Amino acid sequence: MYEVRDVAVAPLPRLARYCTAGAGVGVSAFELVSFDRALRQAGFADYNLLRVSSILPAGVALRPSVEVPKGSLLPIAYGVFGSDAAERTIAAAVSLAFPTEPHAVGVIMEAEGYMTEREAHEMVVAMAEEAMEDRNLKIARLEVVAIEAQVELYTTVFAGVALW
Amino acid sequence: MYEVRDVAVAPLPRLARYCTAGAGVGVSAFELVSFDRALRQAGFADYNLLRVSSILPAGVALRPSVEVPKGSLLPIAYGVFGSDAAERTIAAAVSLAFPTEPHAVGVIMEAEGYMTEREAHEMVVAMAEEAMEDRNLKIARLEVVAIEAQVELYTTVFAGVALW
Amino acid sequence: MYEVRDVAVAPLPRLARYCTAGAGVGVSAFELVSFDRALRQAGFADYNLLRVSSILPAGVALRPSVEVPKGSLLPIAYGVFGSDAAERTIAAAVSLAFPTEPHAVGVIMEAEGYMTEREAHEMVVAMAEEAMEDRNLKIARLEVVAIEAQVELYTTVFAGVALW
Repeated sequence: MYEVRDVAVAPLPRLARYCTAGAGVGVSAFELVSFDRALRQAGFADYNLLRVSSILPAGVALRPSVEVPKGSLLPIAYGVFGSDAAERTIAAAVSLAFPTEPHAVGVIMEAEGYMTEREAHEMVVAMAEEAMEDRNLKIARLEVVAIEAQVELYTTVFAGVALW
Repeated sequence: MYEVRDVAVAPLPRLARYCTAGAGVGVSAFELVSFDRALRQAGFADYNLLRVSSILPAGVALRPSVEVPKGSLLPIAYGVFGSDAAERTIAAAVSLAFPTEPHAVGVIMEAEGYMTEREAHEMVVAMAEEAMEDRNLKIARLEVVAIEAQVELYTTVFAGVALW
Repeated sequence: MYEVRDVAVAPLPRLARYCTAGAGVGVSAFELVSFDRALRQAGFADYNLLRVSSILPAGVALRPSVEVPKGSLLPIAYGVFGSDAAERTIAAAVSLAFPTEPHAVGVIMEAEGYMTEREAHEMVVAMAEEAMEDRNLKIARLEVVAIEAQVELYTTVFAGVALW
């Protein structure tokens, strides 16, 4: 029913080998355009984001940028928050907890809302610790990406971890 | 851990080659059934919709209908709105902005809510123009699909662009 | 642009061959951790859930557990509800309606909210019947998974059907 595709068109793998974290802010009169601009600043513009919850596959490597073609499906765990409540402080953060055991999964935790970057940061650290304890795993490395903004027009804060 | 599958079972590609736009209305006592009926009218019933945000891959071709097997995962950008506020007018729209440059991505923009089809249409045009300007791209072709309905029981309006 | 991957890393197929149903409850001070714990009880922890709406591919077989590697993308239809309203009863349910015709799709219906397990169960049965009637299909087999909980701290109930 569907046609044979170019060999160059790679399938979406079930298991990611790489992950990339980023955060950004976007401002616009339109909610969706502010989201688009936040994605650009975070390094995830021009992908078709597939929101996932929220596991680091075993052995996944952290890379500084996403290296799949623009327009691709991009699985991504994220926290996002938008508001038009002028001058309120909004923030988003994600944590990545890599386990000490090489064959175990890690976790990604997200937070967002009317809060400061510091509060969002602290939340995602505490959440990652709780989720790793649930798995009887120790944390080898904990990375956090967080961002805050003062609202003007419609403002979106975004913090995410792409899996590719 | 997983079995070898039939050659006939194609993987989900990262990059879509085709896109299909459609809009529909559904009415039911149940919210989810009204959504299912709106999908049927839009031409997207019987797929496992994967909601994405919201990029047209370079070179993607617009086709009148989706040609993957029923039951497939179907990446799709959409606006959807449901309500049981009797006699209110609700609408949803999506725009597709194709760039003049053949190797650049385009954008898909969505709007929905208590509004008329015309208002939703105007919003997604303005949003697409703003998002393409952000990318320093000119629009070669702008398509819009929009729909409105007067609410009865639980009513859902849906406008989407499938990527396959 | 992307590298060749191990043969061992299977792509995500468009069409699932198997499905697995499960339900669970999770409790935590953190909403996202309560969700993670509900997933563990339901049998879906340690996957990257891709939420889909909500079709059973023709010929899909019901299996007791998910057999793809941890950390994988896992398409899943689900109902989920979380609350911190102490002592309120919350519930979630999913139904799977398999058709009598072997080449037809079936449907998955979800419900969740401040309700009992019995109410959620009855809702997803009625919804599946309505959605199958819409398709002019008879139900050969109807399965339901449902769960309820009394809220403490932040409590999440989850009922889902993974497609793999």
